[in-house]
Amino acid sequence: MKKYRNFPMVPKVVFGQGSFDQLGEILLTKRKHSDAPMIFLVDDVFEGTPLIDRIPLIFNDHVIFISAEEEPKTVQVDALVHKIKNDFNDLPSGIIGIGGGTVLDLAKAISIMLTSKGHASDYQGWDLVQTPSLYHVGIPTISGTGAEVSRTTVLLGPDKKLGINSDYTTFDQVLLDPDLTRGVPKNQWFYTGMDCFIHCVESLTGTYLNAFSQSYGEKAMELCKEVYLGDLMPCEARDKLMMASWHGGMSIAYSQVGVAHAMSYGLSYVLGVKHGIGNCLVFQHLEEFYPKGVETFKQMMHKHDIKLPMGICTELSETDLDTMINVSLGMKPLWENALGKEWRNVATPEKLKSIYSKI
Amino acid sequence: MKKYRNFPMVPKVVFGQGSFDQLGEILLTKRKHSDAPMIFLVDDVFEGTPLIDRIPLIFNDHVIFISAEEEPKTVQVDALVHKIKNDFNDLPSGIIGIGGGTVLDLAKAISIMLTSKGHASDYQGWDLVQTPSLYHVGIPTISGTGAEVSRTTVLLGPDKKLGINSDYTTFDQVLLDPDLTRGVPKNQWFYTGMDCFIHCVESLTGTYLNAFSQSYGEKAMELCKEVYLGDLMPCEARDKLMMASWHGGMSIAYSQVGVAHAMSYGLSYVLGVKHGIGNCLVFQHLEEFYPKGVETFKQMMHKHDIKLPMGICTELSETDLDTMINVSLGMKPLWENALGKEWRNVATPEKLKSIYSKI
Repeated sequence: MKKYRNFPMVPKVVFGQGSFDQLGEILLTKRKHSDAPMIFLVDDVFEGTPLIDRIPLIFNDHVIFISAEEEPKTVQVDALVHKIKNDFNDLPSGIIGIGGGTVLDLAKAISIMLTSKGHASDYQGWDLVQTPSLYHVGIPTISGTGAEVSRTTVLLGPDKKLGINSDYTTFDQVLLDPDLTRGVPKNQWFYTGMDCFIHCVESLTGTYLNAFSQSYGEKAMELCKEVYLGDLMPCEARDKLMMASWHGGMSIAYSQVGVAHAMSYGLSYVLGVKHGIGNCLVFQHLEEFYPKGVETFKQMMHKHDIKLPMGICTELSETDLDTMINVSLGMKPLWENALGKEWRNVATPEKLKSIYSKI
Repeated sequence: MKKYRNFPMVPKVVFGQGSFDQLGEILLTKRKHSDAPMIFLVDDVFEGTPLIDRIPLIFNDHVIFISAEEEPKTVQVDALVHKIKNDFNDLPSGIIGIGGGTVLDLAKAISIMLTSKGHASDYQGWDLVQTPSLYHVGIPTISGTGAEVSRTTVLLGPDKKLGINSDYTTFDQVLLDPDLTRGVPKNQWFYTGMDCFIHCVESLTGTYLNAFSQSYGEKAMELCKEVYLGDLMPCEARDKLMMASWHGGMSIAYSQVGVAHAMSYGLSYVLGVKHGIGNCLVFQHLEEFYPKGVETFKQMMHKHDIKLPMGICTELSETDLDTMINVSLGMKPLWENALGKEWRNVATPEKLKSIYSKI
């Protein structure tokens, strides 16, 4: 008998321009008592901006600024959990992530590790979390990763880049305010949006696909095309890209990502390349696997005059290149989704080496 | 400051052909103790069919067969709640609805009324429920109503047809098994699917629409067109219509239905006309409000050789016709969504009378 995943959806969602101002009211019913703070993890690009004054701080609530310069790490989660436990006598009432994929993934991981023993790296994998996480809220300030809706938090660990995939990872509340994505720099807007576009290409061409994931993936892809190839007003484009990210994340429910994500994981692990740009760096060379998707991607690059950096892997040592290849080939479900059960016949170390060497 | 709804989504969903056989495992973790039964409300078309043997009954679990011949009523909810409280010493562990919109709406309402005082009719309206409902699961066996995903349960009360709209109405778990929709008779398949199609037309042309609801509505509409105008394999059509219903229901999150639903409510209230066919009976005469939607609807009718009954309202007394018009005009948010704040200038009693008289 085929077994289907019982997929956890975000149980509460607000969508709307300016909806950030409803955050205080939303959190009010979730406050345990005045000594149990709400902890706000905020992307440090917002430090000193008016957004900070709109954060509804009361009692001993606390803001922690997070740099999104680097991919989130398991040791970073452990350190933040240690700090929160040290700084407060009581467990927080909740964790609120305000930022991109890095901040959202950290918020998810911290909410898990505040109620689970051991280290974050102990839980990298599938369904290893046994204890319900703390109440946690996701507020994206850039669109594309799908982190707001997924049941994973992808972390760089001591020996792998892998998600904590569990039902307790999913946010309890998401607030989608497209106005928060106003100031995103163009390159980052492009790379992060492409994370969504590439999700969709990988999901829709994957062997795991079913009608549930297909319907979300198709809608997300359509929205990406409207945003990156159409001619929308900026406000409409922000709205639609936020929905693209949401549906793109949902499309992974019964599907998986594929070759671009598997190879991008290797790139992040060895070189610390950020996820969004990493996907783009790999994806441009994947015509063999995703001919139509790569063609559309190149049209989008052209339209927005995006120049990807080159020569990223040229000076890599053989050892580093081998590590990169091994990390990537370790992502079995991604390869199986992309190429079927016999994926090892196609995705050979030589094939990966030839692709990485072009980057 | 504009206020947006904090929309409750179904927190757990399984999708897949044959996924019904996972129900036992899903319910296991939700059983309070052996004296707190799971109560299965099942459409009586399934009485004596193999599906009944697949219901995972243990301990003192109980099946109640429900006729879906008539629209669900508040007095029926009260009677079922009374029976369940009488028959068992303990509150049930959960209520599982297996059927179409009628059965799903009853399951939702019963799960509310098992923990709320008074009568179901006391809660018809918006956000009147104060106590969390009992754990409840929705398993649709026909696609189109969106009842599986909505935050309402629409009931005929002593003086109105109106939903119990609340965050506690939403199912805790939905199981989407397209195989369960195999035996649906053609007319019913059409009328119920059109409930979804008409939802989408009303939502997408409404004044309440935003990008969240639009993206769901567009996808649901696209899937309806594939199913009713395309050339799909039966199995694929079942999958896609189930997803159309899901997305169509979600599209109401930040939107509303419109003229067809408002007028169909009047038809149900006075004549007991079922919701699906009622929508079709009204919608065919709404070219003035929804020109493109009505055109597509007529193509679908033609392709599937559907003949709608005629002369439904010809022998109505003036009093009944007035009641019908008043019930319909009482659905203020629907009219406002369809026609804007000045809707009363267009939706006059005379206008409604002229439309009803064609039905």
